[in-house]
Amino acid sequence: MRFSSGTSSDGVREQLFSLDEIPGVLWTPDGAAGPRPLIVMGHGGGQHKKAPGILARARRFVTECGFAVVAVDVPGHGDRPKDEEYDRIATENQARVQAGEELGPLIAGFQALVARRTVPEWRSVLDAVQELEQVGAGPVGYWGVSLGCGLGVPFVAAEPRVRAAVLGLGGALASAEDAARITVPVEFLVQWDDERVPRDQGLALFDALASAEKTLHANPGKHGEIPAFELDSTLRFFSRHLA
Amino acid sequence: MRFSSGTSSDGVREQLFSLDEIPGVLWTPDGAAGPRPLIVMGHGGGQHKKAPGILARARRFVTECGFAVVAVDVPGHGDRPKDEEYDRIATENQARVQAGEELGPLIAGFQALVARRTVPEWRSVLDAVQELEQVGAGPVGYWGVSLGCGLGVPFVAAEPRVRAAVLGLGGALASAEDAARITVPVEFLVQWDDERVPRDQGLALFDALASAEKTLHANPGKHGEIPAFELDSTLRFFSRHLA
Repeated sequence: MRFSSGTSSDGVREQLFSLDEIPGVLWTPDGAAGPRPLIVMGHGGGQHKKAPGILARARRFVTECGFAVVAVDVPGHGDRPKDEEYDRIATENQARVQAGEELGPLIAGFQALVARRTVPEWRSVLDAVQELEQVGAGPVGYWGVSLGCGLGVPFVAAEPRVRAAVLGLGGALASAEDAARITVPVEFLVQWDDERVPRDQGLALFDALASAEKTLHANPGKHGEIPAFELDSTLRFFSRHLA
Repeated sequence: MRFSSGTSSDGVREQLFSLDEIPGVLWTPDGAAGPRPLIVMGHGGGQHKKAPGILARARRFVTECGFAVVAVDVPGHGDRPKDEEYDRIATENQARVQAGEELGPLIAGFQALVARRTVPEWRSVLDAVQELEQVGAGPVGYWGVSLGCGLGVPFVAAEPRVRAAVLGLGGALASAEDAARITVPVEFLVQWDDERVPRDQGLALFDALASAEKTLHANPGKHGEIPAFELDSTLRFFSRHLA
């Protein structure tokens, strides 16, 4: 794990790093010492580790909860090289949709393919970050919606260190089988008028989670329009289960 | 409006009253003076104005938010006389269910009948309570699930003083038309394994609400098993919209 730079602002220390070929960023409270809960964040499709939605949430997890937060670029995103196989599949899928195929199953197949790389990557990032003195082996939470849900469900299912997860904007096609292996508390976000994930698919993924404590929050609006008050709820959810 | 008795405990003043034939109870902060937000609460079927679920929530609205809270007995419930018409319908409905009819439409029809009495009753209670110096004409919220939702939806639709409502455990059969006239913010509770309200019916009632801000909270468990953390959310919801 190589740290390439670090900056601080408004009480948050931000450190870019790379682990093998994976570019990442770690946020911790300024002057943090000793173990603390850690949130792993998964970004959305076409986004990256420092996308505005990731950054805004990460800052609040750090400043209001004292947590550490880590996010890495998904293959083919952010500071990672273009991935020829993924690009080829994306191009093929576009053609198949234009030829009349349904988008949902194609996205699901693609996310399952990417998850086979990201699950081991994220687990090795977790190993490395928990070695740091200012993070340590505290409880771990996961936050990810959209692509971050499609990749997050298999990650949370595979990783026993994750004790609570906020997921959503994803459908059962992609990950119902993995969801059935998740038993930790989950807060699950559905956008009632989601133009990308059919409502039934989102509800079916929530239904598939094996967690005894799971709570569905559905709000009007399109895929990208999660209301601001849900972040307040996310903070309380993680505080309740990790702090 | 005649007040028959008053007691205080742990910072909450409780006053029983009757208005015409309606027995009710008002809770306010001890020593309250001047206007404040008021929550109208509707109890569940077979329950009454001081049922444990009403009482526990009312106390927290008073002590944590400084609100006033009012609840009255629904006709045929609590301190009200038996209602021969309702009893006859209930007996008939039991027979019809045993003869193979679906329960849902029968409950819906019954709740619509009761609502024709409770909506004007609750509005006159609101008039009277807002005349009191320690309540005044502040913003009004409504809380009611199950029967309290079936009766609450037409009440909230009819009463412009209500600015925010927590509803749930109710289905679209009973009140979708009234729901389509509700435009205030709503927090709507669904129990994912509700044995009395089919899941689709609950989701359809949420869907029918015309509110631009509405949020669905669904949790695993049966009709009576709303998790405790939802009350924390209810308090924040009312604080956000009424305080």
